[in-house]
Amino acid sequence: MNIDSARLTASLDALGRLGAYTDELSGLQGVRRLAFSKEDGEGRRHVVAEMKAAGLEVTIDRIGNVYGRRRGRDDGAKPVMAGSHIDSVATAGRFDGCLGVLGALEVVKTLNDAKVTTRRPLVVAFFSEEEGARFGTDMLGSAVAVGRIPLERAWGLSDADGKLVKAELEAIGFLGAADERLAAPHAYVECHIEQGPMLRAANIDLGVVTGVQAICWHELIITGRSAHAGTTPMSLRADPGVAASRVQLLLRDLVNCGRFGADLRATMGVTRFFPGLVNVVPNRVVATVDIRHPDDGVLRRAEAELVEEYEQIAADEKVTIVHRQTARTPDIAFSTKVQDLVAGAASARGLSMQRIVSGAGHDCQELARLCPAGMIFVPGEYDGISHNPRELSTPKQCADGVNVLLDVLTTLAEEEGP
Amino acid sequence: MNIDSARLTASLDALGRLGAYTDELSGLQGVRRLAFSKEDGEGRRHVVAEMKAAGLEVTIDRIGNVYGRRRGRDDGAKPVMAGSHIDSVATAGRFDGCLGVLGALEVVKTLNDAKVTTRRPLVVAFFSEEEGARFGTDMLGSAVAVGRIPLERAWGLSDADGKLVKAELEAIGFLGAADERLAAPHAYVECHIEQGPMLRAANIDLGVVTGVQAICWHELIITGRSAHAGTTPMSLRADPGVAASRVQLLLRDLVNCGRFGADLRATMGVTRFFPGLVNVVPNRVVATVDIRHPDDGVLRRAEAELVEEYEQIAADEKVTIVHRQTARTPDIAFSTKVQDLVAGAASARGLSMQRIVSGAGHDCQELARLCPAGMIFVPGEYDGISHNPRELSTPKQCADGVNVLLDVLTTLAEEEGP
Repeated sequence: MNIDSARLTASLDALGRLGAYTDELSGLQGVRRLAFSKEDGEGRRHVVAEMKAAGLEVTIDRIGNVYGRRRGRDDGAKPVMAGSHIDSVATAGRFDGCLGVLGALEVVKTLNDAKVTTRRPLVVAFFSEEEGARFGTDMLGSAVAVGRIPLERAWGLSDADGKLVKAELEAIGFLGAADERLAAPHAYVECHIEQGPMLRAANIDLGVVTGVQAICWHELIITGRSAHAGTTPMSLRADPGVAASRVQLLLRDLVNCGRFGADLRATMGVTRFFPGLVNVVPNRVVATVDIRHPDDGVLRRAEAELVEEYEQIAADEKVTIVHRQTARTPDIAFSTKVQDLVAGAASARGLSMQRIVSGAGHDCQELARLCPAGMIFVPGEYDGISHNPRELSTPKQCADGVNVLLDVLTTLAEEEGP
Repeated sequence: MNIDSARLTASLDALGRLGAYTDELSGLQGVRRLAFSKEDGEGRRHVVAEMKAAGLEVTIDRIGNVYGRRRGRDDGAKPVMAGSHIDSVATAGRFDGCLGVLGALEVVKTLNDAKVTTRRPLVVAFFSEEEGARFGTDMLGSAVAVGRIPLERAWGLSDADGKLVKAELEAIGFLGAADERLAAPHAYVECHIEQGPMLRAANIDLGVVTGVQAICWHELIITGRSAHAGTTPMSLRADPGVAASRVQLLLRDLVNCGRFGADLRATMGVTRFFPGLVNVVPNRVVATVDIRHPDDGVLRRAEAELVEEYEQIAADEKVTIVHRQTARTPDIAFSTKVQDLVAGAASARGLSMQRIVSGAGHDCQELARLCPAGMIFVPGEYDGISHNPRELSTPKQCADGVNVLLDVLTTLAEEEGP
């Protein structure tokens, strides 16, 4: 049995047109579908319609997670679940998350065409605000579904304009009635683009994901003293902008120093000066830090060193640096059983593969708390660039991943037991 | 003859209440009267009312500069002008600019009380958008008045929200009918706070300003490539944020390297990352650079080195750095005659004084193109901190400056000739 590659590509294109924008720099068409935005609402209604067209029974829970259920021969058995997310960052491509959702839906359509009913029910899921790009906490929907984040706290998160999760969910019509706590499925499998250069560089067809690296986010509020740019000698300044720049370059030093191996990633994604006037030394800078490593112990050492350096820089520059941990997830190991099923299916189809650690956070790491869970990585062109309109996995690359997803889901769905 | 110190202090306090805000960090009351804002409109109407109450004939020109004229015995003779500005940066104190305007008005009130009519007319002026804090070009009103900037270009400048100078002037009712090109006065004198630490540190009563240092502003647009923060190895990144941070620290190196003497000032007042998301390497950074030096030749050398370094940093970081010069004024020497009059009046009053170069740009440097012009600097407390709610010159410090202004204006106003 094979999935329909053309149909999968068409469905990725169709969803990619919702929230599309033209990138001012490259002129390329990108996707901007921030969680619970008008565009996200359009995308959600589109996918729900596709689910219903494929015969799935759709339920929406109180954090806006959407589940489309396909009946099984033994409909009381625990379902096998597959999915991902359709929300995006502000400068996204068409594949991040969407491949896992539309891929799982393509598996259902393939089974429908083949008139195959699996023993266990199949559930296609997409989870809310996986990116954390709007409300600051990533994997929000799946974290609530597995009980890591309480619903009330998630509802109370606000975006940069002070808009609240619950009100925004309601506004787009996706504040569902279903219990947000998910009953443990039999297994969960997610097909996703690698979002990195490894597989493509090694000319590997497919990645068997062993787990997700540990992630830590800080929000920094750096406070100094505003002063006249033309008259205040440097020695009398307390310039939070200089402190922020030192933190920025410190991040690179931490990566390059070697003490944390070759796998540390460190990024300053936000820096903004206040009042932000050409002739005024700023009095406040808001910045964010994102550090990641496959080994949580190593990441904690890097974070500890970072926090020490914050204090040193604050002292040197006569400013205060207050840091708030806005995200913290340890490294997660995926089910070896699911890994072996993915590897077996890949070799059965003659696809080359490689075990790989995920650099990004994924809903799968939340589901891994509930059941055996694993991921299939699909390579990307242009060094696997992602969170960028240039993001591209070819139809062949996508089809290879989703065919393996088909094999793994059908195998899991025939397994015995409750 | 002496000015009324209590009356001057009361009038500074009264204007300081218009556009007042409470600083979130210090809890102090500051002033936010950005050019042509609602608050600036309130301040302007207040000062115009004060001018009329003092018997001045008020005219408003097409860039919103306001002139209050007091008749002279020989009313056809060229007037002696004094003034400054009342617009402010977003985090200002009560003295910057206002002392020069309300000080000149206090001189008029003092002459009124003494029933003195000078030979030459006296004009009290305040000029539009001296700070450049809203529309990006400082000394805007006085530069238009002396013909350095054409009216049409000034009218076409827009703020961060795209609002235009002309429409904003009209909105607050200060788009006047008078010709913006100012007829050459006999002389121009401006009393202003030092906005620096020198006078106070040396316990000097008053500064005789010899001129203004050269100023250069750059706006930087740094363009890189957005990418996923968790997966993209540093070696494959083109991170404009790192480039901006290197420029920030380069500024300090230029100041500290010694090759440009001890008087170079360099500030990055604006830095903003786009898209500005915690888990996305930015694709664009907007930043500003402000460099100043008493010697234009030295400043040009520093600027040239800076521009070379932009290219080096851009190459290193695989980004592009486009810089636009948004302000450029050479160093300006003030009239030695006015300097000597200020020095003479100060010693006659037993005040200690010091010749000093202005670190900040002032309307006086524009007026110096039309006529003999000079400035009186008043010391400030707290290292002369300015553009900050802590900005403070004591009633005695202010009165000393305005008494000398009184002496210099009356002397100039009795001079013979057309």
